[in-house]
Amino acid sequence: MSDVLSQYKGCSVRDLPTPNFVINEEKFDKNCTTMLNNVEKLSQECGVPIKFRAHVKTHKTAKGTLKQLGHGLPLAKRTTRAILVSTLKEAEELLNYQDRQCSDYIDDITYSLPCCVPEFIPLLSNLSRRVNNFQVFVDNIEHLENLKNFGRPASGKKWSVFIKVDMGTKRAGLAFDSPEFLSLLKKLTSSEIKEVIEPYGFYAHAGHSYSSTSINDTQNLLMEEVKAVNSAAKVLCSVDPQFDPSKLTLSVGATPTSNSLKLDNKSTLVKFITTQLVSTLEIHCGNYCMYDLQQVATGCVQDHELSGFVLGTVLSSYPSRGELLSNTGVMCLTREASSIKGFGICADLEHVLKSESFSREWYVARVSQEHGILRPIRNWNETTPLKLGSKIAVLPQHACITMGQFPYYFVVNSEGIVNDVWLPFQKW
Amino acid sequence: MSDVLSQYKGCSVRDLPTPNFVINEEKFDKNCTTMLNNVEKLSQECGVPIKFRAHVKTHKTAKGTLKQLGHGLPLAKRTTRAILVSTLKEAEELLNYQDRQCSDYIDDITYSLPCCVPEFIPLLSNLSRRVNNFQVFVDNIEHLENLKNFGRPASGKKWSVFIKVDMGTKRAGLAFDSPEFLSLLKKLTSSEIKEVIEPYGFYAHAGHSYSSTSINDTQNLLMEEVKAVNSAAKVLCSVDPQFDPSKLTLSVGATPTSNSLKLDNKSTLVKFITTQLVSTLEIHCGNYCMYDLQQVATGCVQDHELSGFVLGTVLSSYPSRGELLSNTGVMCLTREASSIKGFGICADLEHVLKSESFSREWYVARVSQEHGILRPIRNWNETTPLKLGSKIAVLPQHACITMGQFPYYFVVNSEGIVNDVWLPFQKW
Repeated sequence: MSDVLSQYKGCSVRDLPTPNFVINEEKFDKNCTTMLNNVEKLSQECGVPIKFRAHVKTHKTAKGTLKQLGHGLPLAKRTTRAILVSTLKEAEELLNYQDRQCSDYIDDITYSLPCCVPEFIPLLSNLSRRVNNFQVFVDNIEHLENLKNFGRPASGKKWSVFIKVDMGTKRAGLAFDSPEFLSLLKKLTSSEIKEVIEPYGFYAHAGHSYSSTSINDTQNLLMEEVKAVNSAAKVLCSVDPQFDPSKLTLSVGATPTSNSLKLDNKSTLVKFITTQLVSTLEIHCGNYCMYDLQQVATGCVQDHELSGFVLGTVLSSYPSRGELLSNTGVMCLTREASSIKGFGICADLEHVLKSESFSREWYVARVSQEHGILRPIRNWNETTPLKLGSKIAVLPQHACITMGQFPYYFVVNSEGIVNDVWLPFQKW
Repeated sequence: MSDVLSQYKGCSVRDLPTPNFVINEEKFDKNCTTMLNNVEKLSQECGVPIKFRAHVKTHKTAKGTLKQLGHGLPLAKRTTRAILVSTLKEAEELLNYQDRQCSDYIDDITYSLPCCVPEFIPLLSNLSRRVNNFQVFVDNIEHLENLKNFGRPASGKKWSVFIKVDMGTKRAGLAFDSPEFLSLLKKLTSSEIKEVIEPYGFYAHAGHSYSSTSINDTQNLLMEEVKAVNSAAKVLCSVDPQFDPSKLTLSVGATPTSNSLKLDNKSTLVKFITTQLVSTLEIHCGNYCMYDLQQVATGCVQDHELSGFVLGTVLSSYPSRGELLSNTGVMCLTREASSIKGFGICADLEHVLKSESFSREWYVARVSQEHGILRPIRNWNETTPLKLGSKIAVLPQHACITMGQFPYYFVVNSEGIVNDVWLPFQKW
């Protein structure tokens, strides 16, 4: 893959083959800096340390991760050494990169899929040796049984577990006020388990915040996340009165809820953190470095903040149907959706590179394997035509999934010149 | 990747890591043999040669392609040397494989995306040198202009073009009775174009046949495809009375419509072919070697004919919600859908390997990046529970897209023993 960089470094994005995925490095940096500084600002407003854990699953690259951690960002007011991964592959490859660089940017990894079953526990155990802090997710009593039966991990320390709290998304996790949650914590605090496993904290992710339509919605959901993990910590204290909750980490976040930290008025949140929180707060999120239409649909992000797009080419036109054909089919864009119509918005390449807002003219209305059918957002006659052979920048609905379709990413500056090629650590 | 084969050859599918994609070779072979023999049977019933062109886009592998061409299938009554590709990468890599094998299984390639624009024409030209017969798609006058401006391709022959006919799918192509179609053919038969480009034939693909619900529906749509390309050939003859239509190829097909060749009663089709067809008929399709739930939903295929599945693991359970968690999220299954609910049907691994029909118990109701939420098809209490850590075979909604998510495929026999690992020629 590295020959791609030697072949295209210094080229203009306008001359790249299509389809390809392009990252605007300046926008990526700005998004990373803003999130780090928003968390730092909250910490200062509360007068307490607030951790930040960067989820790497959107781009899955070494260089993108370093930026999320705060490296190479002159305007970032803090850094972090904690990441979240959606696959073991991401963790293993980032640690390989770090080892070869003889650096230690990362010293804290959380794997965000509850998978403490016999097939995966040995792999989790091996990973525990390679980083100082490693947390696994638990949301079922059998997970604790399986870990206990396996014994301590290869690091020799106890298993450090995040208990996943479901606060409405109904994905993984248990509601903190459910009987299952109570029996899970009773098991967690039993002597047989305590010898092998210790709670690292509680983790909530308001996945349903993706259907918010305003930043106030997402702020309310952030509040709900914080209250849920705080209540979860209190349940643990009720089950084990000797337990000191202050050593716990209460991790909350999703890009939409973390985005609400932009708001100046965070008084309710600050008050809760400073008067009610029983443990240390951690904010986690990942999509924010890229953003996408799903994020724009939450009302917290503008089109021009998106730092990535699919580069495609217009191949044919069908005036009688008012449609165009591009080579941005489902294999490029995937079938992710949001309240914004279609499978991607076609933006003018020059506008997308600059941070100018731009008018939405065309969208990808239908996709099959390699065909993308474009339709005008207004009607055909009011829309600037796109010539056959012209390049289009398609803003994706869900960057985390669309980026999974590309084996590498061209990284360009705001002039559209290729500076770098990032290789993602994909698959399993 | 080849180390995957050396690591797992001879292993049981029950011991493979997850998530992974598994192909049952016996079912794959059976599906390929059946399609080749159905086309041969039609040819014999009509007493005329009928071509078959295998679309390789579902699996994109060398060994899968050889089977589609009829090699290594003792019960196949014919072979073919013609393929259809959805990307140039598929064509280039299959030709690389063939060159290294010093074989010539393939001597006829059609690229199924109309992309005769300046960016791609030089690539098409280079490919024309590597195979005796190479056809490109045209459905716009500008395509003819662009080819003419480029001049003859590197093979030195004329460009050989399939004109894409839209018969209702509204993807690529023009309706044969549209003014645009007429002016395209007038251009095609103009002297300036004739020097550089010659028509190879007309191509129709009833994409909308995927929403059929019975094999009779799909038979009717096959009839419509044949009539549409035949009418298109007649339009060409009306535009250029000297043109001899018998040298044209009229290519029709989609897996649903091609599946209707299974029916014994094909009298209407046979009669049309023998009395009305002005050129040689070609059947093309690709999904049939794998099949998937979209095909089952057309009423032409049974669950147990599917030759591939995603292998996953049950990770957690939430009895209060009546749901389970698996590691088959959208990155594995994609968000393809059909009239069959959800993003995949979880089948019993042992039944899927044998050709027994099996009861549908669980389905993948929701997916996020790496999480698959399973729900019972009937209610929780009537359903055989799935233990944490147990392996599941998830039948995909759309094999062409789901297989694109995996870097390789484990190929097993009906006992579930890994015989081979196939590497797909993915991306662009």
